[in-house]
Amino acid sequence: MSRDFLYTEIANGIAGQIRSGVLKAGDRLPSVRVLCQQHGISMNTAKRVFWELEAQSLIETKPRSGYFVSRLPYRRLPLPEVSKPSPARNHKEPDELIRKVYSNMGRDDLTLFSLGAPSSTLLPLAKLNKEIVQATRELQGCGAEYELLQGNLKLRRMIASRSLAWGGNLMESDLVTTSGGMNALSFCMMALGKPGDTIAMESPCYPGSLQLAGSMGLKVLELPTHPVTGIEIDALKKAVPKIDLCLLVPNFNTPLGSCMPDENKKEVVALLARHGIPLIEDDIYGDLYFGPQRPKCCKSFDEDGTVLWCSAVSKTLAPGYRVGWIAPGRYKEQILKLKLVHAISSSAVTQEAVAGFLSSGRYDNHLRRLRLTLQGNYQHYVHAIAEYFPESTKTSRPQGGLALWVELDKTINTGELFDKAMKQKISIAPGRMFTLQDQFENCMRLSIGLPWSDEVRSKLKLLGKLMM
Amino acid sequence: MSRDFLYTEIANGIAGQIRSGVLKAGDRLPSVRVLCQQHGISMNTAKRVFWELEAQSLIETKPRSGYFVSRLPYRRLPLPEVSKPSPARNHKEPDELIRKVYSNMGRDDLTLFSLGAPSSTLLPLAKLNKEIVQATRELQGCGAEYELLQGNLKLRRMIASRSLAWGGNLMESDLVTTSGGMNALSFCMMALGKPGDTIAMESPCYPGSLQLAGSMGLKVLELPTHPVTGIEIDALKKAVPKIDLCLLVPNFNTPLGSCMPDENKKEVVALLARHGIPLIEDDIYGDLYFGPQRPKCCKSFDEDGTVLWCSAVSKTLAPGYRVGWIAPGRYKEQILKLKLVHAISSSAVTQEAVAGFLSSGRYDNHLRRLRLTLQGNYQHYVHAIAEYFPESTKTSRPQGGLALWVELDKTINTGELFDKAMKQKISIAPGRMFTLQDQFENCMRLSIGLPWSDEVRSKLKLLGKLMM
Repeated sequence: MSRDFLYTEIANGIAGQIRSGVLKAGDRLPSVRVLCQQHGISMNTAKRVFWELEAQSLIETKPRSGYFVSRLPYRRLPLPEVSKPSPARNHKEPDELIRKVYSNMGRDDLTLFSLGAPSSTLLPLAKLNKEIVQATRELQGCGAEYELLQGNLKLRRMIASRSLAWGGNLMESDLVTTSGGMNALSFCMMALGKPGDTIAMESPCYPGSLQLAGSMGLKVLELPTHPVTGIEIDALKKAVPKIDLCLLVPNFNTPLGSCMPDENKKEVVALLARHGIPLIEDDIYGDLYFGPQRPKCCKSFDEDGTVLWCSAVSKTLAPGYRVGWIAPGRYKEQILKLKLVHAISSSAVTQEAVAGFLSSGRYDNHLRRLRLTLQGNYQHYVHAIAEYFPESTKTSRPQGGLALWVELDKTINTGELFDKAMKQKISIAPGRMFTLQDQFENCMRLSIGLPWSDEVRSKLKLLGKLMM
Repeated sequence: MSRDFLYTEIANGIAGQIRSGVLKAGDRLPSVRVLCQQHGISMNTAKRVFWELEAQSLIETKPRSGYFVSRLPYRRLPLPEVSKPSPARNHKEPDELIRKVYSNMGRDDLTLFSLGAPSSTLLPLAKLNKEIVQATRELQGCGAEYELLQGNLKLRRMIASRSLAWGGNLMESDLVTTSGGMNALSFCMMALGKPGDTIAMESPCYPGSLQLAGSMGLKVLELPTHPVTGIEIDALKKAVPKIDLCLLVPNFNTPLGSCMPDENKKEVVALLARHGIPLIEDDIYGDLYFGPQRPKCCKSFDEDGTVLWCSAVSKTLAPGYRVGWIAPGRYKEQILKLKLVHAISSSAVTQEAVAGFLSSGRYDNHLRRLRLTLQGNYQHYVHAIAEYFPESTKTSRPQGGLALWVELDKTINTGELFDKAMKQKISIAPGRMFTLQDQFENCMRLSIGLPWSDEVRSKLKLLGKLMM
């Protein structure tokens, strides 16, 4: 276990140097022997470091010469520009498109680039089953009874103690559990919005949030968003007089994978608090960072309790368990009442199982492995896209999470591409899904939550052909 | 198993004759030997029949004389009258009272007459745990993945096949699963109501439904309700022009335990369908019948798909599993969209476990035992109330379910009684909880879902003293 940790740490350090440009394309890396001496590690551990970096396509071997930093083709792929949603808000819900794409979920005859969660092959299924069995023992009879309204105590304790790592400093009493992440967002919107109110969001953003707001009669104001640093603060400042509520995904949001810098998070929290606007923070991807450490949250800078921090294990561990939570700050009483009225309580046994998994240390090991895989996938995808997609293709540079955002030539309509791709058993998520406006028609989201394989590579190649 | 079935059947037959008046108080029953001959059963089985009837206080032994029909004191307790909620609708939500009463849930130092679910000692906890373990095996990895939007297929099949017994004739494709019964009602109200709409309900009715409607901005129109036959059809007819939506609990609703006769169900369904008013039918107590067979539902008479039949295992099997469902008729697409938007999917493992339990035949055995216990409890409670409560006390005559409704002298305020009782470690559910109007202040609901014991009897005695 500790050896696992060691080689991951060292590999992450080198990966960070490559990404930040300290090590440049073509640079020679130290030999296995030198790495052993530098870090006081065994030959085997040193070799694993290099294998890991190779798996992520960050380095390449030259026979009899050693390891070199890859001449990364993704450097050639430009970033999409900051989005420019129209302030006129001429909405049209992409319901039909969403339905069409979602109806493919669970089909195992397709390559699901449209997937919004990690492939089940990346989840610790056997260990989770053991936790469920253990949970029925721990709970004895209580698993069949209504649980505490606020949710499983052990789970809340684990989430609270993990919040130290990102400056949340939560207590178990600050948390309310929910039936998954959507349920958390749904309670927050219900508690704070009324029909006709306006809610600000990133653009592009998660289709589920657009639909949720729509189903509750909220007006969505989409705001310009940078593919690396997230929502544009100036745009938010200007919008403040017009909005009642704000929903952000500051860490590795889908589809962009952007991460708001700490100073932006701090500024946004202060700005909204000053105007009495509650901030719903969806942090469901926060644990999937590719960098050296977990990013902070807006909640980390919340002095007045106006941030409702929401998360879940749906993107990291067990989508089907429906285990999520809210740290609702000053809105705790409203959230508790809504939970009582709409749900009474959450499912006891899955919460206990997740609590068990979190408390065992297995979660951190699993996350470490999952992050490396996603990071490696990202590199593989970008290599393949550089090779197979049209010259003019732009891609996001996700700093974590499960999504890669691809911007194609204006002449390519990804709604039409979807239909063509489906004939080849490929499902993509067209860009129009992620907005209420007529934009992103030449964009798409690709999931990097599938395990990389020659099959995936050849499907990307095929997808590229369909664009020509 | 089949012997269990046999003695229960025979005991139910005799119980039915007693309740219907074929056998009268003081009548002598056949001897053990005669019963053996009549039914071709063993002495042991015959004895169990009598023990069962005795446990329910339906019969009593006279030494060396045999078994006699009890001189049932509940015959002396009059029924409450049909409720007369004001059509003026001057609402005041009993939120504070509900919060006070609900905050006692889970406290094991209290006698919880306020309980809204069967005591966990009446649930098959060990068998449920085994089903959970089995479910993780059946699902293999899939338990951790997002499930089908419509819900677990095996569970929907089991519910569909059970619907034959009450004339539902549902198919698995007619059903959508939910995270418990409240979640089912919540989706139905969200799908069909908009703020400002009026929803008709029984009076008194389930506090959760009042709160749910309130939280969604619906106006509640409480209608006169008969303690035995449920909602008054004439009142509903008059209300029809004013309502947009109707929520009924036709079978053994809480707090009254009334059961609408089939002809009333049929008439209500036709009436509402004629006026285009959707009917949300909460059938969560339907399996807890004291009579010889499961009653039909409004859904049994639904020709146009305007009835949304909702139920769950929360009152019969496993409150904490949060497994419920809807047969939404013509509103299926709306319900599916809401489920997608607010929840994505339900928890897979608890659904699979319930499906396993239902498919094994264990559910019917469990239900048989539970019904006998509840029926016996009802008799015990009525005996004790006749003995210990003031002369003027009236009680409902539940035909199933978990609740007994008690009407006290007008001078007794059950809100005040609650405070007094709490000092004696007794929690009751004051009548004011079950209405938005100023009525039922001299009423209360007592749970018959606690296992009967000398402790329970003495607490009822104490409760009676507090009224004097």
